[in-house]
Amino acid sequence: MELLDKTLQSIAGLNESAMKEARERLDNLLKPPGSLGVLEELAEQMAGITGHTRPTVGGKSVIVMAGDHGVVEEGVSVAPQEITRQMLPAFIRGFAGISVLARQAGAKVVVVDVGVAGGPVDMPGVVSRKVRPGTGNITREPAMTREEAVQAVEVGIEMVMAEVGQGATIIATGDMGIGNTTPSSAILAAFGNYSAEEVTGRGTLVNDDVMAKKTAAIATALQINKPDSADGLDVLAKVGGLEIAGLTGVILGAAASRVPVIIDGFISTAAGVVAAAIKPECKEYMIASHLSAESGHKLMLEYLGLKPMLHMDMRLGEGTGAVLGMNLVDAGCRILNEMATFAEANVMDLEEDRILK
Amino acid sequence: MELLDKTLQSIAGLNESAMKEARERLDNLLKPPGSLGVLEELAEQMAGITGHTRPTVGGKSVIVMAGDHGVVEEGVSVAPQEITRQMLPAFIRGFAGISVLARQAGAKVVVVDVGVAGGPVDMPGVVSRKVRPGTGNITREPAMTREEAVQAVEVGIEMVMAEVGQGATIIATGDMGIGNTTPSSAILAAFGNYSAEEVTGRGTLVNDDVMAKKTAAIATALQINKPDSADGLDVLAKVGGLEIAGLTGVILGAAASRVPVIIDGFISTAAGVVAAAIKPECKEYMIASHLSAESGHKLMLEYLGLKPMLHMDMRLGEGTGAVLGMNLVDAGCRILNEMATFAEANVMDLEEDRILK
Repeated sequence: MELLDKTLQSIAGLNESAMKEARERLDNLLKPPGSLGVLEELAEQMAGITGHTRPTVGGKSVIVMAGDHGVVEEGVSVAPQEITRQMLPAFIRGFAGISVLARQAGAKVVVVDVGVAGGPVDMPGVVSRKVRPGTGNITREPAMTREEAVQAVEVGIEMVMAEVGQGATIIATGDMGIGNTTPSSAILAAFGNYSAEEVTGRGTLVNDDVMAKKTAAIATALQINKPDSADGLDVLAKVGGLEIAGLTGVILGAAASRVPVIIDGFISTAAGVVAAAIKPECKEYMIASHLSAESGHKLMLEYLGLKPMLHMDMRLGEGTGAVLGMNLVDAGCRILNEMATFAEANVMDLEEDRILK
Repeated sequence: MELLDKTLQSIAGLNESAMKEARERLDNLLKPPGSLGVLEELAEQMAGITGHTRPTVGGKSVIVMAGDHGVVEEGVSVAPQEITRQMLPAFIRGFAGISVLARQAGAKVVVVDVGVAGGPVDMPGVVSRKVRPGTGNITREPAMTREEAVQAVEVGIEMVMAEVGQGATIIATGDMGIGNTTPSSAILAAFGNYSAEEVTGRGTLVNDDVMAKKTAAIATALQINKPDSADGLDVLAKVGGLEIAGLTGVILGAAASRVPVIIDGFISTAAGVVAAAIKPECKEYMIASHLSAESGHKLMLEYLGLKPMLHMDMRLGEGTGAVLGMNLVDAGCRILNEMATFAEANVMDLEEDRILK
C-alpha cells in the first residue's frame, strides 16, 4: 500500500506552459491551424506529459499482464483456461500477435505472470510476480481481497518504473487472460451504472449460449459483490482481475513517472476506468489507441472521455492495438519537431495573408 | 489516350487463389480467427493484389499532384492561389507535413506540377508535367477539355509506373491545390446525386460567407456543365481538377501494375471516385487510410465501399493521412508472415479444442 500511496501522491496535472508553447508552434507550422487534427493534440499532450516543448518518442515498452479468472467455471468463455499459460511462451518467443506488432513498432515486450492459474510459469523471460493463481469465481465470491488487489496494482507500478528506469519513454498496455472480458464488462457496469445486458459483448468466439451465461454471470457478480463505484479498489477487488489490477498499476505508475501510456482495447480500458476512479488526473496521461470490436469498449472510452484513433475491428488484446498507436504518437511529435513554421519557411502566411519574405 | 486505354485493359481482378491461401493461414494463426480485424483484411487484400501468398511491403512512394483552380475567382477559398506554388519547395526541402510523415514512413515523396497556375515551377525535384496552368472557372466553363483530362490522367499513370519501375511496392496519393475541395465536392455531387449543400464542407479555414459562396459555386458548376455521371472522364473534365485527374491516373496505374494504392483524404478520394467510374475493378486496389474532417469525405468513402482505418480529424491533404496508413498495411503483412500458426506453435487450438502436442 505504501508504494501505491506514494505513486498516487506523485501524480500531478500536465505541464500547462509546455503545452502552450507547443500549441503556439503547432499553430504556426506550414499548414492551416488544427489541420493535422489528433496528431497535433498528441504533440501537445506529449509536451504536457513530459514538460518538454519539443517532445520526442524514444524507448518503447508494452507491458503484458497475464491472469486467470475463476468465473470461467460458469462457461463464459469458449476457450479453455490453459490457453492463458500457453500463450506466454509465444509472446516471449516472438511469434504471437503482440510480438510481431511490437517488433514492428520497435517496442520491448514485458510479459508478467501476475495471476495465471497453477504454479509459476517456468519460462525464461516471463516475469514471475503471481499474486494468486487466478481470481475467485465472481458469481460466488469477490475476485480477490482488497490487499491482493493493491499487491497486483503495485506489481504494475514496479514494472512500469523498471521500464522507465531503463529508458522507456512511452508505455503500451496489454493483457492475456481467458475469460477477462467478463470482469471488464462488470467493471464498466459498476462505474457506468449499466445493466449486464448493456455491457456484455461476444468476447472471443462466443455463441448465443455462452453469451447468455456471460450476461447472467455479470449480473450475478454485481448482485453478489455489490462493488462500490465510489471506491476504485473495491470494484477492482470484487469484480476485477489480477491482470486488470496489474494494468491499473501500469497506468498509475506511468502517470507518476510522467510517461504517456497507450491504452489497448476492452480489458486495458477497464484498467483505465479503475485507474481514473482511483486518481482522476491519470486520465491526462492516457492515449486511446483503437476502438475494439468488443461492443462495450465504445461506452468505456466515452466514460473516460477518450477518442480512439484506429478503427480496425480488432479484438485480440495482448496490446496489439496499443503498439500500433505508438507510430501515431511518434508522428505527432515529429510534426512538432520537424515541420517548419511559416516564418521559418518564408512562405505566405495562410492566416495573416502576408508574405513574410 | 493510348496509354490510358492500354492501362484500363490491363486492370484485372484480384488473385483469388492467393487470397484464399492467405486467408487459410490467417485463420490458423495463434489468435481467434478474425480477431485482428482490418489487419487481416489488409493482408488478404495484399495477397490478392500482388498474387503472393506471403506479401510484404518494400519500397514506398507518395505521389503529390499539384494543380490550381479557376473557381477560386468566386471566393471559395480564404487562402490565395499562390500558396499552391509556394508549398512545392517545402515538400521537396523536407519540412512540410507530407515530407515529415513520409520520412517517418520511409516513403519517397514525388511532387508533380500537373497544373499549377503560372509558368513552370522552377525547382529541382519538382516533376514538371503541366497540362495547363490551372483549370477554368467551373462556374462559367468546364474545368478543362476532355483531351486535357486524359493527358493529366496519363501523367499520373506515367508517374506511378516510373515509381513501380524503381521498386515501389505501395503507393500513396497526395494533393496540393488551393480551392480543390470545391471540385472534389462537385465530383461527389455528380456521382452520388447529392445537392450542393450535402457535399459542401468547410475546407480550410472557411467562414460562413465563404461557405455560402462555395455552395453556390458548386451548384452553379453542376448546372452549367451538366456532367454525365455515366462517363467518368466527362465529370473529371467538366468539374474536376488537374491534380484530381493526375491522381485518377495514379490510382488506375497502380491497379494496372498490381500495386496497392493508399487513398488520402477528400481530394484523393474524389480521384478514387472518378477512377472507379472509369474502371470499377480498380477499387479492389484501393486502401482507405483516414476519415477526413471534411464532411463530404464520409459520403465518398461510403460511395466507394471503403472503410477508413484512421479517425484523426485530419484535413491537410498532401497525402499526410495516406502515408500514416502505410504502417498499417505493413503491420497486416507482418501478421501474415511472422505470426505462427497453432500447429507451428504447438499450442492448444482454440477452435478445435485439442492439444496439438
